[in-house]
Amino acid sequence: MKQAMTRLSIQGRGRGLQEITSTLANWVAGSGIRDGLLTAFIPHTSATLLINENADSDVARDIEDFFSGVAPENAGYRHENEGPDDMPAHIRSALTQTDLQIPVLQGRMTLGTWQGVFLFEHRSEPRKRDVVLHLLGD
Amino acid sequence: MKQAMTRLSIQGRGRGLQEITSTLANWVAGSGIRDGLLTAFIPHTSATLLINENADSDVARDIEDFFSGVAPENAGYRHENEGPDDMPAHIRSALTQTDLQIPVLQGRMTLGTWQGVFLFEHRSEPRKRDVVLHLLGD
Amino acid sequence: MKQAMTRLSIQGRGRGLQEITSTLANWVAGSGIRDGLLTAFIPHTSATLLINENADSDVARDIEDFFSGVAPENAGYRHENEGPDDMPAHIRSALTQTDLQIPVLQGRMTLGTWQGVFLFEHRSEPRKRDVVLHLLGD
Repeated sequence: MKQAMTRLSIQGRGRGLQEITSTLANWVAGSGIRDGLLTAFIPHTSATLLINENADSDVARDIEDFFSGVAPENAGYRHENEGPDDMPAHIRSALTQTDLQIPVLQGRMTLGTWQGVFLFEHRSEPRKRDVVLHLLGD
Repeated sequence: MKQAMTRLSIQGRGRGLQEITSTLANWVAGSGIRDGLLTAFIPHTSATLLINENADSDVARDIEDFFSGVAPENAGYRHENEGPDDMPAHIRSALTQTDLQIPVLQGRMTLGTWQGVFLFEHRSEPRKRDVVLHLLGD
Repeated sequence: MKQAMTRLSIQGRGRGLQEITSTLANWVAGSGIRDGLLTAFIPHTSATLLINENADSDVARDIEDFFSGVAPENAGYRHENEGPDDMPAHIRSALTQTDLQIPVLQGRMTLGTWQGVFLFEHRSEPRKRDVVLHLLGD
């Protein structure tokens, strides 16, 4: 049993979903661990991680629209000093995932046919975001 | 330290919550690992996993009603070609969990008295769903 | 590779967010495991765990307000026999996290600068809540 850890730096594209599946798959494949448990952790409070459909890009756009509607800007928040998109970003983060776990079998994530892993940026401007990857197994 | 992995196939019953606690408990008990970390991962984008109250079945029905209201059908989604229940299912998935982790102690999940583990089907028709289980420990 | 497990008992303060970052950090630091994966699991169905901003306490108050609005009391739930705040608590639990995973490096959680770990109480009255911690690593 052994473990591997790395920190990715991803250049974001602004609010919405950005697929990172192949980056994770490549790191897992090169880790030397064939079977185990992958964790992806995002050390931010206004960007999160999401597994969802990656076949039709309209799904990602509809998801973004949904979250924009659920936590709109200028909705009377106390916390406004970091800009109108900041508190909505914290709420969207609370509703989605700061960490994901995916079992790994024979060097591959056990993702389903239609599943992709996404960086979910909640602030309007493009930002560089870190993702910590941890893999434990044989 | 060792690990065990399996893939369950569960015959669903259509939209709503279906308890799978005893299936997980039985697999853990028979795994030969007494103390460790259980992961349940669902390789689908329109069904998820949820831990919630299992004592009063009204709770599961109220949860289903809530999610039906939050992500209704025919709400002007772009992604409509897989049917009116598909995009709401992806949104409901984004709001709940694709993976769960539960510490295991002395061969049993450390679930609380009122906690059950549920398969949360988000599409209207009954479907067969897979759940990947992974257990790492001693 | 080894593991450590404990059960914390935390005196809550009623509905809202209560930071527990330093409690987790102290347990990790004293565990004898320097690199690995931390899991925090809450064995309750009306309190959850959340990672979010801990610099400005207004963020926690805005998050509480948001969840109070999303799942209000007396909204026609079937499950009313445990009080008007109980079913909203189960819904708020379904929307947030029963478990968190955080990679640990050199004896410290890899939390970002602005991230804190919070116990998120969803019922109105203060309650004592347990949190199970599990750490696996070297």
